Amino acid sequence: MQNPRKPTRPVVIVSDNTGITAETLSHSLLSQFPDIKFVTEVLPFVVDEDRVFNAVDRINGLARDHASTPLVFVTLVVSEHRRLLETAQGVFFDLFDTFIAPLEEELEHDSNHSLGQSHGMTDIKRYSSRIGAINYSVHTDDGVNTTDYERAEVILTGVSRSGKTPTCLYLALHFGIFAANFPLTTDELDIGKLPDALVKNRHRVFGLTIDPERLQQIRQERRSRGRYSDPKQCRFEVNQAEALFRRESIPHVNSTSMSIEEISAKILHRMQLHREFL
Amino acid sequence: MQNPRKPTRPVVIVSDNTGITAETLSHSLLSQFPDIKFVTEVLPFVVDEDRVFNAVDRINGLARDHASTPLVFVTLVVSEHRRLLETAQGVFFDLFDTFIAPLEEELEHDSNHSLGQSHGMTDIKRYSSRIGAINYSVHTDDGVNTTDYERAEVILTGVSRSGKTPTCLYLALHFGIFAANFPLTTDELDIGKLPDALVKNRHRVFGLTIDPERLQQIRQERRSRGRYSDPKQCRFEVNQAEALFRRESIPHVNSTSMSIEEISAKILHRMQLHREFL
Repeated sequence: MQNPRKPTRPVVIVSDNTGITAETLSHSLLSQFPDIKFVTEVLPFVVDEDRVFNAVDRINGLARDHASTPLVFVTLVVSEHRRLLETAQGVFFDLFDTFIAPLEEELEHDSNHSLGQSHGMTDIKRYSSRIGAINYSVHTDDGVNTTDYERAEVILTGVSRSGKTPTCLYLALHFGIFAANFPLTTDELDIGKLPDALVKNRHRVFGLTIDPERLQQIRQERRSRGRYSDPKQCRFEVNQAEALFRRESIPHVNSTSMSIEEISAKILHRMQLHREFL
Repeated sequence: MQNPRKPTRPVVIVSDNTGITAETLSHSLLSQFPDIKFVTEVLPFVVDEDRVFNAVDRINGLARDHASTPLVFVTLVVSEHRRLLETAQGVFFDLFDTFIAPLEEELEHDSNHSLGQSHGMTDIKRYSSRIGAINYSVHTDDGVNTTDYERAEVILTGVSRSGKTPTCLYLALHFGIFAANFPLTTDELDIGKLPDALVKNRHRVFGLTIDPERLQQIRQERRSRGRYSDPKQCRFEVNQAEALFRRESIPHVNSTSMSIEEISAKILHRMQLHREFL
């Protein structure tokens, strides 16, 4: 039974493509209302009248089930489909209607009203380069294939579990950045020098650090026994890594309270990397 | 020298966080104007007055350099900062101003106007589960560690270079989906049966296929000699894989003209996977 005093508000994303744009925006906007519980349903690939009618049915069904009018975020380029959709029982936030008209006026151009321009395969060369970046990040993960560092736009380094792998993958997937990563092992930390593979590419090296307590938690979940997740060991490794970054003037951030998106945005900004949006 | 008849239109993203939301939306909108060349600059982490003034200077600088008013997409939750920013010489598209007011009215709640709610670390449990998904996809890439398939929400299969790895990584990074992938090698294709690891988990298996000509191109770039990139071999593998999918009733899509986002959205939709937006 639902609590009638704090009902769940249904949210529907209707898109003629993947729905990612509308989902990203709705997520940003609704996160500004933390006291309300939202439940989101995505209806992608709504490209013909039949699917618009299905979407109308679904919105009306959710309105009934939740006894609450769904918030509907819409990216449909065909205006007839938008008009049809708006016969459903929803509160509509139409991204195209809202912004395309003022853009057309400002740009003195009509928009082409064509489907699948965003998050699609409109530019195969750019797309191949992105796939190349993803393969590169997998290929150079965890300090392997350092001979291919010529191609790297950035090389992340830091102790084990400081966030290097997810950040590299995000940089590749989202921005097409060639990002390698090299772990600082206890051997290197004992010597207190930057490993050779990094020395040769120091202008592209970026450090990740993390609070020792958080590191210990993460490592504990992965392997609960032994030196790897020992609090003293975690403190030692982090201290050594941070000292190394300072000594060698390696730019770095503390990833403890940052998401992958935030870490990536900081790296792009600090390293002045060309941010190609894909 | 710029061509005066087709100038480049500057676009600026100003955000108090990563800028990803505004960048995603601007990209979607501007891709509807394929005849205009845009050059985009992202100014993330604009969190205090100093940085707002820097953003104003930058926008005015771009307006001068391009002799064209920049389009400025804004996500700043502090309204004073928005007002200050709008003193710059730009055409402003304010995502918060546009949508937050109607949402507040509809939801009968004030928004909390706080920073970094989206793409931040607001929910550590959800965030950890996402990192878990990323590590899982790396850990089970390319048919290794099949004993961990219990945890998989989906297992992608297909011939080498049909798009399995990038799709798995995207599903993990973007939606926190535990996605493994298993390559169909010539051994399995010759036998014409689903490999044991997949038989046991067949309700979670999803196939990727690709046009043989495109496959041949991709393989050629990777390894230009030998059977791997031979046109006849590519045709053989694709035919066998598609026959196997049909015989075993494995849902599948042809990835040839689809982006990773589109493939992922299809998989989530067809497999009815819970799409947690992160």
